[in-house]
Amino acid sequence: MERDSTQVNTAIAASNLAQEVMRRCRVLASFSEDSAGTRRSFLSPPMHEVHREISRWLQPLGVNMRLDAMGNLRAVYPAAVTPAPRLLIGSHLDTVPNAGAYDGILGVMIAIALLEALHGRRLPYAIEVVGFSDEEGIRFGIPFLGSRALVGRIDEELLMATDAAGVCVREAIAQFGRNPDELAGARLASDVCGYLEFHIEQGPALEKLDLPLAVVDAIAGQTRLEVTFVGRANHAGTTPMDSRCDAIAGAAEWIMLVEREANAVTGLVATVGSVRAHPGAANVIAGEAHLSLDIRHHDDATRNRAVKTFVREARQIAANRGLTLRHATHLDQPAVAMDRFLSDQIEAAIQSAGCRPHRMTSGAGHDAMILTEKVPAAMIFLRTPGGISHDPAESVAPADVEKAIACGVHLLDQLASTPAFLTRTLRA
Amino acid sequence: MERDSTQVNTAIAASNLAQEVMRRCRVLASFSEDSAGTRRSFLSPPMHEVHREISRWLQPLGVNMRLDAMGNLRAVYPAAVTPAPRLLIGSHLDTVPNAGAYDGILGVMIAIALLEALHGRRLPYAIEVVGFSDEEGIRFGIPFLGSRALVGRIDEELLMATDAAGVCVREAIAQFGRNPDELAGARLASDVCGYLEFHIEQGPALEKLDLPLAVVDAIAGQTRLEVTFVGRANHAGTTPMDSRCDAIAGAAEWIMLVEREANAVTGLVATVGSVRAHPGAANVIAGEAHLSLDIRHHDDATRNRAVKTFVREARQIAANRGLTLRHATHLDQPAVAMDRFLSDQIEAAIQSAGCRPHRMTSGAGHDAMILTEKVPAAMIFLRTPGGISHDPAESVAPADVEKAIACGVHLLDQLASTPAFLTRTLRA
Repeated sequence: MERDSTQVNTAIAASNLAQEVMRRCRVLASFSEDSAGTRRSFLSPPMHEVHREISRWLQPLGVNMRLDAMGNLRAVYPAAVTPAPRLLIGSHLDTVPNAGAYDGILGVMIAIALLEALHGRRLPYAIEVVGFSDEEGIRFGIPFLGSRALVGRIDEELLMATDAAGVCVREAIAQFGRNPDELAGARLASDVCGYLEFHIEQGPALEKLDLPLAVVDAIAGQTRLEVTFVGRANHAGTTPMDSRCDAIAGAAEWIMLVEREANAVTGLVATVGSVRAHPGAANVIAGEAHLSLDIRHHDDATRNRAVKTFVREARQIAANRGLTLRHATHLDQPAVAMDRFLSDQIEAAIQSAGCRPHRMTSGAGHDAMILTEKVPAAMIFLRTPGGISHDPAESVAPADVEKAIACGVHLLDQLASTPAFLTRTLRA
Repeated sequence: MERDSTQVNTAIAASNLAQEVMRRCRVLASFSEDSAGTRRSFLSPPMHEVHREISRWLQPLGVNMRLDAMGNLRAVYPAAVTPAPRLLIGSHLDTVPNAGAYDGILGVMIAIALLEALHGRRLPYAIEVVGFSDEEGIRFGIPFLGSRALVGRIDEELLMATDAAGVCVREAIAQFGRNPDELAGARLASDVCGYLEFHIEQGPALEKLDLPLAVVDAIAGQTRLEVTFVGRANHAGTTPMDSRCDAIAGAAEWIMLVEREANAVTGLVATVGSVRAHPGAANVIAGEAHLSLDIRHHDDATRNRAVKTFVREARQIAANRGLTLRHATHLDQPAVAMDRFLSDQIEAAIQSAGCRPHRMTSGAGHDAMILTEKVPAAMIFLRTPGGISHDPAESVAPADVEKAIACGVHLLDQLASTPAFLTRTLRA
C-alpha cells in the first residue's frame, strides 16, 4: 500500500489489471466506519478517503472528475470527437455492515481498469465512470440514493428523511461538503446513451454452471408478504392431537408447500425468512404463527401467479385446520428488463473473451434497475465463490476479473463500430 | 355472599350441593393478589382469606382442622371407630395468574361437599380433606410444594429457593405465620390408606366423548427437547431454490413429521410450541431455526420410542438438506400410574352415578402424581367445556359437578364395605 499509485498505473501491463483491480478493492475495504470489518454508508467520513484514493487512480487517465451533489463520484473520459454520445460504466461505493470487499466496489474498479486498458486510445463515444454514493440504503433505510439522483427521482420528502442520529439527507449532503440545492446538476446529460454495470452475482448459479460471467437479462420483481396463522393456544399436555388448532403446524404445512411450489417453477425463489410463535412456550400449543414470505421472479405474471397460489393455499390450510389467516403485502416491485441491444452486445463480448455466454436474472436489486428508467442499461455478473456475499468471506477469482475486463474491452470496441449504438439518445 | 354459611350448610339439600360447590369456587376466585382477575400463589396474603372462608364451611361438619407448616389446609372427619384407616380427598388452592375459578379449587370444594352429603354419618374410615398450598409452582418456580411436604420431599435446598422478591421458602412460611421447623408434622400419618382427587380435565376429551366424568388411570410422562437446525444464511433473492441450506424449511418438514407421527400413535401428544429463526429477516434465508418439542404419553416406552424416532428423523431431514442438527433434553419425567384398586372402585362408582365410565391419561401433572409415591392415589376428571383452562373462561357444568358428587358418595360407600381397602397401609 506504500507504492505511489500514479507510477503504478502507467506500469501495469494489461495482464496485471485484474490483480490491480482486486488489490484496489481490498484497499478501499480498509476505509470503514467500524474499526473491525467494513461498513461504509452513504456520505460517511470514510467515503471521503475512498474518493481521494480513487482520484489518484483516475487522474493519470485524462478524465474530467467531479463529485455531484449526491456524493456520486463521476469521471468523464472524453470521446475522440465532439459532439459524441456518452456511455456510463459504474456501480456503488457504499457497503452493508460487516461487508466484503467486492459488492459494488468491484464494478467501479473494473470501469477504471477498462479506461486503463485503452492506454489513452479515444473512442467515438465518451465514457463516464460512476461510483454511486448509496445503493444499499443502510443509513436512511432508502436504497439507491445515488442512482436516484441521476434519474431525477429525488424529492423534498426524500431529502427530509432522517438517519438514526436524526440527520436528514439534506443536512448529510451539506455536512459532506456538497450543496443539496445543486442536485439537478447530478442528472443524466442528454448525451448519455447507455449504462453498463459489472457486479458480483452474490449467488451460486455461475459457480454451479462453471462459468465466470453472465449477461443479466432482467432484475427480478419482488413481493413481500406478512402472513399470520391464528389458531387457539392450549395446554400441550391435555389437548389431544385431533382437538388442536395449532398455528405452528399450519405454518409448517404452508412452508413445505411454498418450498415445493417454488421448486416446481423455473427461476422462482420463495423464502420464509422469519417465523415467530405466540405465546411461544414449550408447553403451550401456539395460538399464532407470524411468517414473512419473499417471492421473486423475472416474470411478473409468474410471480403474481405464485403469490396468488401461496395465499390461496395458506387459506386452504387454515380452513382445513380450523385456523384463520391474516396476510398483508409489504412490497410489490415489478421486474425490470435490461436493454436487449446492450445485452446482445455483452453476450458477443463474453464469447470474444473466450467464455460460454449465459443469461440470467438477478435476484437482487442493482443501480442498473434505477438507471433503466432513463437510459438503456445492462449488467455483467461475475461468478461469486460459494455464492457468499454481504460477508467478509465474499470473494471473486482473479481469473474471472481478468475475463470480465477482457469482455469489457471487447464490448467497448464492438460499440465503437456500431452506428446503432452511437445514435441512441436519452429516454424522455 | 351475605348469607351465613353455617346456616346454609345445614340447609342445602343434596340436589343443591353442586350449585353450592360452584358458588364457593367463585367466592374463592375473588381472593386474589391482582385487583383484576384471579392470581393466588403459594402463601400469598389472599390465601389467608381462602382458609378463613373454607373454615366457615368446614366447622359445622365436626372436623379437626389445622394448617400444616407448608400452609396446607387439613381437616379430618373422624371415622365411626378407632383405630381406623384414613382416606385423603383434596386438591390445590393456589392458582396461575389470570386463572379460572375451578382448577384445583373444585376438587377441594367437592371433598367438602362429600362430607356434607354424609349428613353426619360416620364411615369405618376417617376422611381428611386437604387443600394444598402450592401445585402450580408460580411463586418459586417449583411446583407441588404442598404435596411434597406430605410425602417428605422437602429438603434444605428447596427451603432456600427464593421468589422474585428474594424471599426464600423458609421465610415465606414464617411470614405466613407457620413454623418451617415443624415441616415433619406435615407428613402423611401411617393410617393413610389412599388419596383421591377430583379435578377438571383441562382438555377437550370428555366433551368430545359427551361424558361428564372419567377415571384417570395414569399421569403422562413428559420429555422436553430443544432442537436446532443449522443451515446457511444467504440472500433470499440470489440463492436458487436448489442451492439452499434453509434451516426453516428443515424445521417445517420436521414439524409436519412430528405431527403425523403423533397422530398415528394413540394417546401420544407432541407439541412444537416455540419456533425462532436466525437471523430472522424477510430477505435472508434462515441460517438457524430453534424449536421446542414437548412429548407426552402414559406409557414411558411409547414416549421414549417417539422421542428416539423424532430425533432420528430430525437428523435424517438435516442430512438430506445439508443442515446440521443440535438437540438437548431439558426434561425427562416418567409416567405415573394411578392405583388400580381405587381406579376400579371409581369406575364402578361412576356407573352407579348413572354415567358411562371412561379411562384416560392426564396430560398435565397433578398432586396425585406426588402422593402416589407414598400412598395409593386415584383421580376423577370432570368434563371441561371447550377444554379451556388457565383462563378466566374456564368453567364446569353444574350437572357434571352433581354427577361427580354422586360418584363420590357411591365411592365412599363402596370403600366402606370393602375390607381390602380398610386394611391397606401407607407405603414405606
